[in-house]
Amino acid sequence: MQYSEMSKEQLMQELEKNEARLEEMKERHLSLDLSRGKPDQAQLNLSMAVLDALKADSVTDSGNGLDCRNYGALDGIPEAKSLFAEILQTTPEHVFVGGNSSLTLMFEVMSHAMIDGLLGEAPQIFDAERKFLCPVPGYDRHFGMTEHFGYKLITVPMKNDGPDMDVVEELVRKDPSIKGIWCVPKYANPTGVVYSDEVVRRFARLKPAARDFRIYWDNAYCVHVLDPENDQPILDILSECEKAGNPDMVYEFTSTSKISFAGGGVAALASSPANLIDIKSFMTVATIGYDKLNMLRHVRYFKNLSGIKNHMAKHAALIRPKFEAVETILDKELGGLGIAEWTTPAGGYFISFNTKAPVASNVTTLCKECGVVFTPAGATFPYGKDPANSNIRIAPTYAVIDDIKTATELFAIAVKVETLKNLLGK
Amino acid sequence: MQYSEMSKEQLMQELEKNEARLEEMKERHLSLDLSRGKPDQAQLNLSMAVLDALKADSVTDSGNGLDCRNYGALDGIPEAKSLFAEILQTTPEHVFVGGNSSLTLMFEVMSHAMIDGLLGEAPQIFDAERKFLCPVPGYDRHFGMTEHFGYKLITVPMKNDGPDMDVVEELVRKDPSIKGIWCVPKYANPTGVVYSDEVVRRFARLKPAARDFRIYWDNAYCVHVLDPENDQPILDILSECEKAGNPDMVYEFTSTSKISFAGGGVAALASSPANLIDIKSFMTVATIGYDKLNMLRHVRYFKNLSGIKNHMAKHAALIRPKFEAVETILDKELGGLGIAEWTTPAGGYFISFNTKAPVASNVTTLCKECGVVFTPAGATFPYGKDPANSNIRIAPTYAVIDDIKTATELFAIAVKVETLKNLLGK
Repeated sequence: MQYSEMSKEQLMQELEKNEARLEEMKERHLSLDLSRGKPDQAQLNLSMAVLDALKADSVTDSGNGLDCRNYGALDGIPEAKSLFAEILQTTPEHVFVGGNSSLTLMFEVMSHAMIDGLLGEAPQIFDAERKFLCPVPGYDRHFGMTEHFGYKLITVPMKNDGPDMDVVEELVRKDPSIKGIWCVPKYANPTGVVYSDEVVRRFARLKPAARDFRIYWDNAYCVHVLDPENDQPILDILSECEKAGNPDMVYEFTSTSKISFAGGGVAALASSPANLIDIKSFMTVATIGYDKLNMLRHVRYFKNLSGIKNHMAKHAALIRPKFEAVETILDKELGGLGIAEWTTPAGGYFISFNTKAPVASNVTTLCKECGVVFTPAGATFPYGKDPANSNIRIAPTYAVIDDIKTATELFAIAVKVETLKNLLGK
Repeated sequence: MQYSEMSKEQLMQELEKNEARLEEMKERHLSLDLSRGKPDQAQLNLSMAVLDALKADSVTDSGNGLDCRNYGALDGIPEAKSLFAEILQTTPEHVFVGGNSSLTLMFEVMSHAMIDGLLGEAPQIFDAERKFLCPVPGYDRHFGMTEHFGYKLITVPMKNDGPDMDVVEELVRKDPSIKGIWCVPKYANPTGVVYSDEVVRRFARLKPAARDFRIYWDNAYCVHVLDPENDQPILDILSECEKAGNPDMVYEFTSTSKISFAGGGVAALASSPANLIDIKSFMTVATIGYDKLNMLRHVRYFKNLSGIKNHMAKHAALIRPKFEAVETILDKELGGLGIAEWTTPAGGYFISFNTKAPVASNVTTLCKECGVVFTPAGATFPYGKDPANSNIRIAPTYAVIDDIKTATELFAIAVKVETLKNLLGK
């Protein structure tokens, strides 16, 4: 029976029952963390052979005679460019391979936009009204970065196939201070949404008032499929932008952080020839070059997209049961009550959960009091503030499955308790 | 006999003789490069066992239970902080370990000064008069970075024990737009100068007009001794600044780029507690963390400062003969002519050469025409302009020794030819 159909007495009984369950859980003195999208031990073990791909007796020349132990090759070794081109469905000429963190590449490009300006435009730091579009719910580190740089963050609603493009089109067309938008086009963080062809094409055809407007296309989860039989390809934004006459409008990012090692992987950026020249012009000042040995290690081990896909199928086999466990418990505990909705993503690292009543912050606080940490409510919104106080991000990969089950059960009870309190005016 | 004592006829004969030698060299169709401070193949081979320090069956936890394969530990693993603390003669609490490139750490800190401001001061980008002190001759990439960020570059003369501190003290005391100074305190690039205790103390006691004035102390060559029996320690700038009541005035940098692999090593920064908090506040936005596996690999292999010093002695054994070969040929060809001076460094990667006549650019151009590339004259000065047209940086590490001998011989002949032309008014 839905809570909305219950009498006050029934609601009181339901609250009492769930508060009793909560007390039982509290006595277990739990200490669990489902707050961040981290790979687990077993996933990390999958990649240990990457470490053996370069040894003391290995040849360290890449195929074209470049010694990966020495200076040189600012934009990455050719073999790594080819691998990332395959991953991102583009060509090696569009790829810059650099560092261990795609977030750092985003930060460096944004610093460049702030200080130097993009392709001859004014430095964005001198536009006191600078703004950035943030589809919500979204990734807290994206929003935090633009907040750090002093952009005013404008929320854009997410639909089932991507951001609401009517809103995006209207905003960027009218306001020259809107300098960019954050996108996670495949298995979005946290909704798991996959952008439709229509949405990708509408992005490519945007007519922004700002010549230095950029789409930050964070394709972090492009190969992170939970069911490899059911991969959902998206259109290549770079070629769509080229076709639409907007070749310089997008920076695409990805990394192997959740393919090989988190922090010990390789990151890449793909963009237009003009943008790559622009990026290399400051990167040549900013670095003596990236770690080519780690690029070579990854290329030798994974070889090509087929190698990556085989490897990601092993990841999927490990984490899919965790997602299913969460979904099963949420169904069992909350199904039919009419008090919440949640996603069943086909890839990525997160489940996005929405309470109907404005109780999300109470739920995560209550869970924390009971020893289980979720991403704080609000974190998926700019400035950490969810106006509906509804969205919670669940990250089910890192913990072991029994702990995930316990944590999800606690979570579901907390949702019921806080919703009931809200309905009862407590 | 010195050229200055020769008759015009003698000078003409000398020119004819050396031009003939140059023609002979030209016919050898040389293609040599002594332009950059790169380690050679044999040096890189010294570190191949570093690659075996982490294998598929290695434990990847650092000593304190941190899994180096996963996210976390923004400022580096504790073991790496300890190693760099030993290298920099400081404590682990002063150390931030991050990335593969100390130049990148400098760039990131300077971006932060530009965009955010340091410890509550205004962003430096809003000071249109911002300036930076550049001891000359110095490192082209340092000067290029401050030029990139729009600082006006002010030259400061180098003496035999460091920058001219009378000049430095006077400038920073008077001008609040002077935001920093570049220093390579041990085996300076390119002079090989080692800063005296007096110079280090005068740096620590500076009274800058700008509260956000910083010393960028690039201790790149602190363990890069050519004669390990004759290491020349310098004072620890961090503790000297603390003693002088200027704890926040310095950022110190180093890396293993020329210890293990160029680009495949580990970089570190050391500074005051307040500066480290300030740095971590933007680094937490800029990265998901650095490559802890490469830190662990280096720590497992080198262990401690003693391990580093043993390793550097092997580097020294390989490159000292190259430095000696250059010095021997310069002595033989140019000794007693009174037309040039050059350094005999006890460490580092460079020999600094000064012509007496203003012919440095002609010399490097002539060498290039004969197939031998030196760092372009002027590169050791801000904006690439040496007012005396005198200084040339020789980098004798990368080429094989026979090529270095040939290149140096050509170089010495070119110096004679161009000086003679100058003296003869040609």
